[in-house]
Amino acid sequence: MSVVGLVVEYNPFHNGHLYHLRESIKKSNASVVIAVMSGHFLQRGEPAIVSKWTRTKMALYCGVDLVVELPYAFATQKAETFASGAVSILDALGCDYLCFGSELGDINPFISTNHFLEQSKAEYEDLIQHYVKTGVSYPKALTLAYKNLNGDKELLDLSLPNNILGFYYVRAILQQHSKIKPLTIKRTSAGYHDQQFRSPTIASATSIRKALFSENHPIQSYVPEVTLQFLQENKKNYHLHRWELYFHLLKYRIMTMTTEEIGSIYEVEEGLEHRIKRCIQSSSSFQEFMESLKTKRYTWTRLQRLCTHLLTNTTKEQMKCMNEGQTSPYIRLLGMSSEGQAYLSHIKKQLMLPLLSKVTSFDHPLLDLDIKAAHAYQMIYNEPIRTKRLKEEFSTPPIRVR
Amino acid sequence: MSVVGLVVEYNPFHNGHLYHLRESIKKSNASVVIAVMSGHFLQRGEPAIVSKWTRTKMALYCGVDLVVELPYAFATQKAETFASGAVSILDALGCDYLCFGSELGDINPFISTNHFLEQSKAEYEDLIQHYVKTGVSYPKALTLAYKNLNGDKELLDLSLPNNILGFYYVRAILQQHSKIKPLTIKRTSAGYHDQQFRSPTIASATSIRKALFSENHPIQSYVPEVTLQFLQENKKNYHLHRWELYFHLLKYRIMTMTTEEIGSIYEVEEGLEHRIKRCIQSSSSFQEFMESLKTKRYTWTRLQRLCTHLLTNTTKEQMKCMNEGQTSPYIRLLGMSSEGQAYLSHIKKQLMLPLLSKVTSFDHPLLDLDIKAAHAYQMIYNEPIRTKRLKEEFSTPPIRVR
Repeated sequence: MSVVGLVVEYNPFHNGHLYHLRESIKKSNASVVIAVMSGHFLQRGEPAIVSKWTRTKMALYCGVDLVVELPYAFATQKAETFASGAVSILDALGCDYLCFGSELGDINPFISTNHFLEQSKAEYEDLIQHYVKTGVSYPKALTLAYKNLNGDKELLDLSLPNNILGFYYVRAILQQHSKIKPLTIKRTSAGYHDQQFRSPTIASATSIRKALFSENHPIQSYVPEVTLQFLQENKKNYHLHRWELYFHLLKYRIMTMTTEEIGSIYEVEEGLEHRIKRCIQSSSSFQEFMESLKTKRYTWTRLQRLCTHLLTNTTKEQMKCMNEGQTSPYIRLLGMSSEGQAYLSHIKKQLMLPLLSKVTSFDHPLLDLDIKAAHAYQMIYNEPIRTKRLKEEFSTPPIRVR
Repeated sequence: MSVVGLVVEYNPFHNGHLYHLRESIKKSNASVVIAVMSGHFLQRGEPAIVSKWTRTKMALYCGVDLVVELPYAFATQKAETFASGAVSILDALGCDYLCFGSELGDINPFISTNHFLEQSKAEYEDLIQHYVKTGVSYPKALTLAYKNLNGDKELLDLSLPNNILGFYYVRAILQQHSKIKPLTIKRTSAGYHDQQFRSPTIASATSIRKALFSENHPIQSYVPEVTLQFLQENKKNYHLHRWELYFHLLKYRIMTMTTEEIGSIYEVEEGLEHRIKRCIQSSSSFQEFMESLKTKRYTWTRLQRLCTHLLTNTTKEQMKCMNEGQTSPYIRLLGMSSEGQAYLSHIKKQLMLPLLSKVTSFDHPLLDLDIKAAHAYQMIYNEPIRTKRLKEEFSTPPIRVR
């Protein structure tokens, strides 16, 4: 019996995800699929369109066997930390494979590029620092340093977002001396950042969310039936979550903080606290705030993540409790199929990390961040829905499907 | 030319205030009336029903010549600190008299009681500590200690709220070696905490607010025409502010704070942070939260003030910047009549404190608290009103009437 691990956000689960899931099973010949999924806030610093509980159901109905949560401390971070946390959880759960989507579709350059950069480490880091000093963003500096170092060699194109994530998955596997074998599947039809529909059945999550919010385009061709049902139900009874719905809370938070307090928030660096305080004053929407905050030095994503940390009140001090190796200290179970449950019983005794099915059963500063983020996520509701949904975080048992 | 000072909240300005204003002028024979008024949050730890700008207009239209702000650091405090800050401002503005309302109506017991307690200071403080240790609230301990010490003497009844405030005004005058002469006017018809109407024209602010929110009783007999107009205008275009409208922000704040962070907030003492965190979880209204938080040890008012400090994110550290003597470091001008303006020109050169007509013209940690509180106060509005009202705090010049 082999086990394949996927790193996902499912925001929402769409046909591209289904394709990736099925190809991963084929390629690994696995009988159990484990997805480590971001909680309520995502890598691009956005609230998930629907809660982690609903996204867990989507995943289970579409064929995933175990859904576990990627803690906030990894889920809302740059690719390197994100990948490291995800790999540590899949490794602890005994995965044989990690299968990721990439623009390239061939695993070898991911491995050789890692080896090459490990050998050229000092030179690479000097180059990155050099480019950062010219005032470009960090991702841009990485690309430039890499190009400079790369020369004529046939290495990975690290300017493509899924190649970058894949590169760091492989790096984390190597660094954590994991037995996981990395696999990759070529992404088809939809680019990561695509805002338009290009294929009749596959579209990016970005374009699907855009269609959902604008209500201009029907999305049923691009998502499984179960996704459609859950989205419609959420739209009817709750909200489809997006930054604008949180803007009043973000603005309230910033307006009642001193610049010193803003400066203590994770990712607020280099005097950015003064700029934040100045920009929020006259901004009447999240979009307006972000546009006024944006400079060449910071990517939109980086600034959105910073806003997420402001919203959840996550300080540098609190993030410090993440251990040096950037691996997760626990595994939080969100849901399972009967196969998933059987697999868990099978490996329970060899598990290298505590497995939590309830947040009250464990105590760790990183788990406190997850709980805080879950509460912040629900604060856009009025009573009595708010209190009902806040209680979910403590009382929802892992979801069982099939 | 003599000048009389009043310490007010005008929440809202009613016929009792008008009576007090006119009697104060008669009693002091003053030609200028100065009111030092709480800003957006009041001594009982509540948001003011309408903004300080509207309340300033009410005061000016009804005969006050100068309205200056009692800073947040004094306005949301126990009687002793509240009175000390207010007296320091009236003293700096050159007031000859301070005229307060009291249940007693005779100034002599206020002075003799102060002298008596000054002489018996050590014994009095020991008694207070003794009663606090029995588990009663601080105000209750004061009353018990005072009764114990008092014996058969004919001293002030310090169990009555306006007698207490008056006692501390006189004490502050004595302690600050001010030349101000204290006067008092007997309060008639309405008790401080009265929730019912008892007189045909005079009612407490509490009962007037209650009538406004319940919409059961017309209030026109109890307030000047100008108050009625401003209240109706505010009700139509904005909100009549009350705690319940802020509950979602308070809940969001607490749910995204660690217990350590809650413990750093001003007035959170003796492990109350754990109780706060526990009680907010299941509370779906401010009333529910307060009822679950309440114990014998803390008065409702004390807990409401604590909620105000949570809402405005005011820490113990930030309150430390208040100087030892508990006197104000600045005077913020909110509004003036032409007589008030003439008086200001006349005394400008002898003013002992900086006079601010704009918050941007001065820099002090206590002023930062006023600004933060003003922003928190406006956060219940939707855009574009929120941003418009936030800007007011910076751009509203002192109001001129007549």
